[in-house]
Amino acid sequence: MASLSGFPEFLPAGRMAETRAIDIVRQVFELHGFTGIQTRSVEPLSELSRKGEITKEVYVVRRLHADDNDKDALGLHYDLTVPFARYVLDHAGHLDFPFRRYQIQPAWRGERPQEGRYREFWQADIDVVGQDELSFHHDVDVVLVMLEACDRLHTELGVPPVLVRLNNRKLIEGFYTGLGVADPLAAIQVVDKLAKIGPEAVSTMLAEQGIHTSAIEQILAFAATQTDDAGLSALVAKFGLSGPLIDQGVNEVSQLYAAVQARFPGQVVIDCQIARGLDYYTGSVFELELQGWEALGTISAGGRYDSLATDGKKKYPGVGISFGLSRVFAPLIAQGRLKASRSVPSAVLVAVDSPETRPMADEVARALRARGIACEVSPNAAKYGKQIRFADRRGIPYVWFGSIHGTVKDIRSGEQVDADAASWTPPADDLTPQITPLAAGEPLI
Amino acid sequence: MASLSGFPEFLPAGRMAETRAIDIVRQVFELHGFTGIQTRSVEPLSELSRKGEITKEVYVVRRLHADDNDKDALGLHYDLTVPFARYVLDHAGHLDFPFRRYQIQPAWRGERPQEGRYREFWQADIDVVGQDELSFHHDVDVVLVMLEACDRLHTELGVPPVLVRLNNRKLIEGFYTGLGVADPLAAIQVVDKLAKIGPEAVSTMLAEQGIHTSAIEQILAFAATQTDDAGLSALVAKFGLSGPLIDQGVNEVSQLYAAVQARFPGQVVIDCQIARGLDYYTGSVFELELQGWEALGTISAGGRYDSLATDGKKKYPGVGISFGLSRVFAPLIAQGRLKASRSVPSAVLVAVDSPETRPMADEVARALRARGIACEVSPNAAKYGKQIRFADRRGIPYVWFGSIHGTVKDIRSGEQVDADAASWTPPADDLTPQITPLAAGEPLI
Repeated sequence: MASLSGFPEFLPAGRMAETRAIDIVRQVFELHGFTGIQTRSVEPLSELSRKGEITKEVYVVRRLHADDNDKDALGLHYDLTVPFARYVLDHAGHLDFPFRRYQIQPAWRGERPQEGRYREFWQADIDVVGQDELSFHHDVDVVLVMLEACDRLHTELGVPPVLVRLNNRKLIEGFYTGLGVADPLAAIQVVDKLAKIGPEAVSTMLAEQGIHTSAIEQILAFAATQTDDAGLSALVAKFGLSGPLIDQGVNEVSQLYAAVQARFPGQVVIDCQIARGLDYYTGSVFELELQGWEALGTISAGGRYDSLATDGKKKYPGVGISFGLSRVFAPLIAQGRLKASRSVPSAVLVAVDSPETRPMADEVARALRARGIACEVSPNAAKYGKQIRFADRRGIPYVWFGSIHGTVKDIRSGEQVDADAASWTPPADDLTPQITPLAAGEPLI
Repeated sequence: MASLSGFPEFLPAGRMAETRAIDIVRQVFELHGFTGIQTRSVEPLSELSRKGEITKEVYVVRRLHADDNDKDALGLHYDLTVPFARYVLDHAGHLDFPFRRYQIQPAWRGERPQEGRYREFWQADIDVVGQDELSFHHDVDVVLVMLEACDRLHTELGVPPVLVRLNNRKLIEGFYTGLGVADPLAAIQVVDKLAKIGPEAVSTMLAEQGIHTSAIEQILAFAATQTDDAGLSALVAKFGLSGPLIDQGVNEVSQLYAAVQARFPGQVVIDCQIARGLDYYTGSVFELELQGWEALGTISAGGRYDSLATDGKKKYPGVGISFGLSRVFAPLIAQGRLKASRSVPSAVLVAVDSPETRPMADEVARALRARGIACEVSPNAAKYGKQIRFADRRGIPYVWFGSIHGTVKDIRSGEQVDADAASWTPPADDLTPQITPLAAGEPLI
């Protein structure tokens, strides 16, 4: 059967690399006090289909033999933010705010499959949600935590360093409103496509919204700017922008810039083109790309949303950022560039002399496992050479011969020593499969 | 919004308990050399809908705005065995056989929601698949590995000890064929319902298949037997059963019984009623239940399948067993009986004196995290009493005051000591959230 386009699946050594990547980001999130949750895979279709453009990509889920009792129209979630906002409302009475959570799960989008796009893909999200209010320093926090996770992925797996691009919806909205744009959100969604469709197409679409040519020129000139915090202040002065919304936006993006620059110098820029297409952002917006691998596109993004979750009485403002695990790792794993040193967890293959002595081999394996050493017993009593090749094909470094008091052979060096299964331990590097990081400067391909 | 029936979701402290359960079984599987894989969530509907009864529970997945290019009719997988068999065929050229894999993922069934049944549920499967052949000792292996995992769940989380019920399709088929049953598989699927619908209903359904009354009586008398290996031999003699298929079945189930009895005495029985409804089993079949919690039903099951995966040229016989993580843990977590000692990973809350000194608190947090101590910084500079209550509500055991050279307070005992954030470490029990195991003999409720 041909594999389904857009639904990546990995061989064991590749899956181990993916698991390592997940463990790294999870560890960083937990060190920062984020608690892990999972939401169900489905949401009511009504919830999923009211967030604008994305609607057409939603996968509907329906029982094959549905009957009239199936009132709930369901869909697979296309991100982890919408389900999280719903989770907060569902469980608000049992959560403590500000609530810091991470969530590592697949999401689904019925996109046309193309390079780097998946229909089933894993995301790793962190969000902080407050009740009624949420201080701005949380915006800084989520960005720094994600950058720390990316830094670990860089150090441990060789993923290139990230560059974070910052902007702020308050600044953009204040600016657009000042230019007389009637529906700033609609304009933002068009400008968000700038990198994809280019300034001419954006111009045309903005004109169709009834925006004046002079305003469009200013919007495009502003969007073309990449700068630092001092440069932003100069830019705002040049454009003659003012008003409380703009001031607040400039202040926030400048604070965020300074904080990131202090921790990760050279990895941040204020990019006035960044807008984010989703309609729920209300303040900070950020996008991350990999330096040198810009063609991979945005690998992580997020922002502030003050009104995504509300139950009518209470508001739950939040800020979060999502990391595209599949976006980054699926191609590397599929190309075989990131994989474990072996295809099985086993550090040791316990050889079997004859069907009758299998219990002896089982006993050796039990003694090793009791001390946390993963191993497997040879499936047959073939000649030793064949059993060694069995281990070699899987990348298992050691083969054990004989009983508890036996000998163990490092099949890479050929060295064989007497050993006691109750005490022998392989070197730490051999105990678990290792992931060789990518070489520095490796191209994306 | 009301929660969706059959799609369980947990609060953070409950999710931590679920994560611990998953980590325990994963660790056992890896110690035994099983390698983790994930398959995509969807399969072609044609694959999912050819396994008999289960078809009507399949969830179909379709793009909301599907067009003529959407040729693939897809469905969510309802177990992990069918996708695994497909994975083996898809990737056979890149796998080494016998291939030992574990898989921990959700599955979906559009069942009518009822107590203990979920529409989205997690399973943990192990399987061993060979190319062309697979020795019987793998049947023994997968059962013992799953029992070891259950034993760890018993010891570490207080889940009651399991009882495994064994039977063998060869024995049943040989017996039914000897009784003149034309379609033994159809009869097996009826007998599988015995525990649910009772002997009278089964009788009626078997009669509808054209089976003689005397044969039905023998089928029911046989199915009513629970015995050990010696008892099985006596039973087979009493029924006058013979033939190569029956002999092989008796031999296999007896071997399996002896091996389990040796490792887990008192936790195994040969139960001639066990049949398993799925049509792909060809040899060993097994079902596990929790002793004292029988009302929970079968929490783990599996068997031997010699013909599930075939590409026409090669056969891939396999044996596997599936553990119902949600079946066991979802009710315990939902009832709040199994949860972590705190709702966040943080061992320490770093207090904040004033907005201006937040960077000092960030520095303390960074020093603690550098040594693997999860912590969070207070979201505000409220009075210390309020910050301590913030920690207390989340179960965070320690609050840090001041700079890197500060003081740390155990808020449970009130004890406060001078401490250096570059060297202070909490006791191991406080470093990560602990899961209190269930008390021995706790009823199921």
